[in-house]
Amino acid sequence: MIADRLYERIAETGPVCLGLDTSPSYLPPGLAEKEGGEAEGVFAFNRAVIDATFDLVACFKVQIAYYEALGLRGMKAYADTLAYARSKGIQVIADVKRGDIAATADRYAKAHFTGDFEADWITVNPFMGMDTIETFMKQALAADKGIFVLARTSNPGAADFQYQTVEAPTGRRNPLYLTVASRIASIAALCIGDHGYSAVGAVTGCTHRDEARAIRQILRACFLLIPGYGAQGGTAEDVASYLTAGNGGVANASRSLLLAWREGEGGAAWFADRTRQKTLKMRQEIQLALIEAAR
Amino acid sequence: MIADRLYERIAETGPVCLGLDTSPSYLPPGLAEKEGGEAEGVFAFNRAVIDATFDLVACFKVQIAYYEALGLRGMKAYADTLAYARSKGIQVIADVKRGDIAATADRYAKAHFTGDFEADWITVNPFMGMDTIETFMKQALAADKGIFVLARTSNPGAADFQYQTVEAPTGRRNPLYLTVASRIASIAALCIGDHGYSAVGAVTGCTHRDEARAIRQILRACFLLIPGYGAQGGTAEDVASYLTAGNGGVANASRSLLLAWREGEGGAAWFADRTRQKTLKMRQEIQLALIEAAR
Repeated sequence: MIADRLYERIAETGPVCLGLDTSPSYLPPGLAEKEGGEAEGVFAFNRAVIDATFDLVACFKVQIAYYEALGLRGMKAYADTLAYARSKGIQVIADVKRGDIAATADRYAKAHFTGDFEADWITVNPFMGMDTIETFMKQALAADKGIFVLARTSNPGAADFQYQTVEAPTGRRNPLYLTVASRIASIAALCIGDHGYSAVGAVTGCTHRDEARAIRQILRACFLLIPGYGAQGGTAEDVASYLTAGNGGVANASRSLLLAWREGEGGAAWFADRTRQKTLKMRQEIQLALIEAAR
Repeated sequence: MIADRLYERIAETGPVCLGLDTSPSYLPPGLAEKEGGEAEGVFAFNRAVIDATFDLVACFKVQIAYYEALGLRGMKAYADTLAYARSKGIQVIADVKRGDIAATADRYAKAHFTGDFEADWITVNPFMGMDTIETFMKQALAADKGIFVLARTSNPGAADFQYQTVEAPTGRRNPLYLTVASRIASIAALCIGDHGYSAVGAVTGCTHRDEARAIRQILRACFLLIPGYGAQGGTAEDVASYLTAGNGGVANASRSLLLAWREGEGGAAWFADRTRQKTLKMRQEIQLALIEAAR
């Protein structure tokens, strides 16, 4: 069961999720030209990064927007990236944030759980309501896949709607994202694996540590996909506050890891080694923060 | 300016939007085989439908999920469909419902406003907040494109979050979708064309006619993309209640028009002609409802 495999993997490697949100502007000079084009360069870059890091990470996340932006060849690079990462036995989260009426959600599920764009988990957007999320969940269960539902995102505009105060089922008033979290928890409960975690997880930005306890309390059985580490300002201590005994979530970093080759000396020649070193450092930082938090 | 061109087109043809949400299961028998595959069959079907209806419709809408579900060849059929419809001089709405943090929204805008997947309008999801929507809006303005922001969708689950009662800026309490609509209106005001309509529109399902007045009052300068006609239960009278003097919105029908060939006698031989007849009928129904509503 997918959630059990992710749990075991996190227990083994720690909770780092490396985000292959690869803009052509991130490539070392000459790589795109050598590979025959931007999209081909992006895949060559990803392949080298995957080779250099797959033993260190819990999973990879691939942000599809960066590939859609490169058109049909970009979509080929996307498919190739997913297939290459999965060929290493590592789970891949397709960060697609899809959401639509049930009949359409069904098509998106087919797109991202099977065929050219097959991933292990996808991110989904709850705005249209639980009928859309339930469709994704049913398709995920049938294919032994998982979903991460957006609950509280890490961007400044998250406040606009996710923080609107609404009436909770209990009669108390709370921010909308907690109501979303409660609804996620209720369907997550339908597909919990042997290790106590569900194939339905949630996306929760890590930049607001004060919210971690309330979110974790509602989403006990959910893996949290925690964006915002590094470039977006999240720290190892923030991440640790969202985890339970070092498991139950993955912390994603993309730009800060992919662009490690621009820091320090030595140039771009060993770009993937630099990403490896930075990924190791992120893993260690989180391990230290977890030890500190457990005291 | 894109909004002016859409206004003039609606004034000329009426507000029918034909949805090319083409499932391979909608194709007449033999078409996919003849064309060499499901994705190729879908494009051949779309091309025939576009040829048979482009003089009748305000615009086409293409639901990308149906193409993503067919993998890389599906994405080719998607690109081909957009290009073919646009080659007729007709605007195309890419129903992609994307939404992400600003840097990623920027990539999605590049994907759907330029290159292989270039469309005229895209649908976007506001859940993550206005910073994400503003990114789409800025990119749309730069490229003379437009966006439709989800406000109130037509599926049953819309009630789950869009109907949560929140505090409006005025201090009154209202459903979340009206708060979303108010925020849409405030950015729509920044890009209004000569005819009084904006390059920022909104998606509002037409199955709740009692809501039409409140929505229209807030979104005076916004085109409304009105799904739900036909297969989802919306009627011509419902659509009329959302329009202003017959303009200011488009009513989408997909399945009911694409599957016209399954109704009545004559079989599948003239499938696109059947879609044409049904599209004409939808147009007439809405025209009659508009005349009735104007009395």
